[in-house]
Amino acid sequence: MGGAEVDAHVCALARELGKRIAERGWVLLNGGRDAGVMRASAAGAHEAGGTVIGILPDADASRAAPDLDHVILTGMGDARNLINVLTSDVVIACPGGAGTLSEVALALKNGKRVILLGWDAGEAFVEFQRSGLLTTVLEPQDAVLQVAEALPHPGRGQQE
Amino acid sequence: MGGAEVDAHVCALARELGKRIAERGWVLLNGGRDAGVMRASAAGAHEAGGTVIGILPDADASRAAPDLDHVILTGMGDARNLINVLTSDVVIACPGGAGTLSEVALALKNGKRVILLGWDAGEAFVEFQRSGLLTTVLEPQDAVLQVAEALPHPGRGQQE
Amino acid sequence: MGGAEVDAHVCALARELGKRIAERGWVLLNGGRDAGVMRASAAGAHEAGGTVIGILPDADASRAAPDLDHVILTGMGDARNLINVLTSDVVIACPGGAGTLSEVALALKNGKRVILLGWDAGEAFVEFQRSGLLTTVLEPQDAVLQVAEALPHPGRGQQE
Amino acid sequence: MGGAEVDAHVCALARELGKRIAERGWVLLNGGRDAGVMRASAAGAHEAGGTVIGILPDADASRAAPDLDHVILTGMGDARNLINVLTSDVVIACPGGAGTLSEVALALKNGKRVILLGWDAGEAFVEFQRSGLLTTVLEPQDAVLQVAEALPHPGRGQQE
Repeated sequence: MGGAEVDAHVCALARELGKRIAERGWVLLNGGRDAGVMRASAAGAHEAGGTVIGILPDADASRAAPDLDHVILTGMGDARNLINVLTSDVVIACPGGAGTLSEVALALKNGKRVILLGWDAGEAFVEFQRSGLLTTVLEPQDAVLQVAEALPHPGRGQQE
Repeated sequence: MGGAEVDAHVCALARELGKRIAERGWVLLNGGRDAGVMRASAAGAHEAGGTVIGILPDADASRAAPDLDHVILTGMGDARNLINVLTSDVVIACPGGAGTLSEVALALKNGKRVILLGWDAGEAFVEFQRSGLLTTVLEPQDAVLQVAEALPHPGRGQQE
Repeated sequence: MGGAEVDAHVCALARELGKRIAERGWVLLNGGRDAGVMRASAAGAHEAGGTVIGILPDADASRAAPDLDHVILTGMGDARNLINVLTSDVVIACPGGAGTLSEVALALKNGKRVILLGWDAGEAFVEFQRSGLLTTVLEPQDAVLQVAEALPHPGRGQQE
Repeated sequence: MGGAEVDAHVCALARELGKRIAERGWVLLNGGRDAGVMRASAAGAHEAGGTVIGILPDADASRAAPDLDHVILTGMGDARNLINVLTSDVVIACPGGAGTLSEVALALKNGKRVILLGWDAGEAFVEFQRSGLLTTVLEPQDAVLQVAEALPHPGRGQQE
């Protein structure tokens, strides 16, 4: 997960993350739009030979990122954020705006393990940091290590 | 908006808020469940003669609060949080958990004015505090004053 | 329920139906758009002093019918059809297109009593006609009589 | 698409259909539950080496069919029917109940090509049969032939 409007540094981070997810043999699932973290992580995973699923807010594929293997069209706008987090085994959130925050919150509400890559969600989420459900890492490689630990059967998880 | 599992102080705050919303002649819209902030704010508004709409996550009304005038059944779980914020003219969030945070985030993403009653969302939301879209107040009466200022035609808004 | 693009005869039927629902003291719930059966039934109920709730597919109210008391904004497109039928005690479907058929089907799947006003759904729905869950009537007054019989406590049902 | 509670003949039809979809190199998308047409078509596609995506109504995977490659969890109940039809290039509907009818109706409303396998939807859908958007076939091989004709670039379509 992550913002549609982010700077080049965040895009590079997302691309590296996508690459490492694919190298693990995991499926990358994101919001599917041709922008920001969604486009960059899909590109990174695709280049590394991974499988990418995009869950779009739209009813048609005109805004879909080019590197998706499977385009899921919901036609439900931001309500699709719930699908993103429910479907993921672990959620990794790159920097973003309020949409990304809503996904972090929905994931935690549904008991999902959430890893923030390169940012901190602050005091509003402190109870989840204390319980260990929410962590922050600085590098994609550390995010991937934490995912491996969090998966029910390490290395065999289906999507994040 | 606000948590389903909150203490007596937060319930009292929510009840007072519901009362003041009703006294203004506004419609109270909330998540509709018979718990926490939802039940308390509905009770306060109902006692003051107001109209209360509950947008439930469920497909049937078995968990609906008793003081709702209109029960909207979505059968969509947390995806109904989007409906709550899109339908509201202004969102007032009492203390709660991750579900409440997801509503705050979705509301801000959709450009809605959000007022936090008795808590602070912290640094993750700081850009919205700077722009004035997000504020914090300590008392229900202050929340209602800020709603009146935020409504397109003060005193004639339809729901919050 | 009913089509957005219908002829004057169907609009007159929907208007008369809205009026009779309001006269019974029931709440009218429909898809809320300013078109066809939605606009006409809302107008009929409003003129007779009734309460009208519109569940819109949109994220803003620009396409809402003028005679709604409460505008519920879902931002979920046709997914809102599920909310329409789950929230209704009884579904009355005026003539319409595929959208109306999807509501009839979703209502029956969820065990709701469905009354077709002025049309017949044909053989695809024959098992529901046999069980009595689906009936056809020709006049609004007959639809309202069947609603009264179907409500758990006749005359006290909340919406249809 | 198709019913969860269907007889052995319909299951055999669905299994054969899944096999033929996979042999064409297309992705099979269905409702994902471990029942009826969903389970049978997934099994047929999986055995033939195809890729299967299941869009579940649930928030967890406990009711997912065993032969899915990708499990999409919506937590939105029947509202996920909209996702099924929007995401599909062509919809093939095996016999089913009201849920299947709601998918056929939603697909037609959204301009999707719909093929009924082994049944007829009757007079309610006659305008779509006249326009050619809706057809009926008796054998899985005929359904697949019609899909090939309907795809924008024959043989290269992504899902149905």
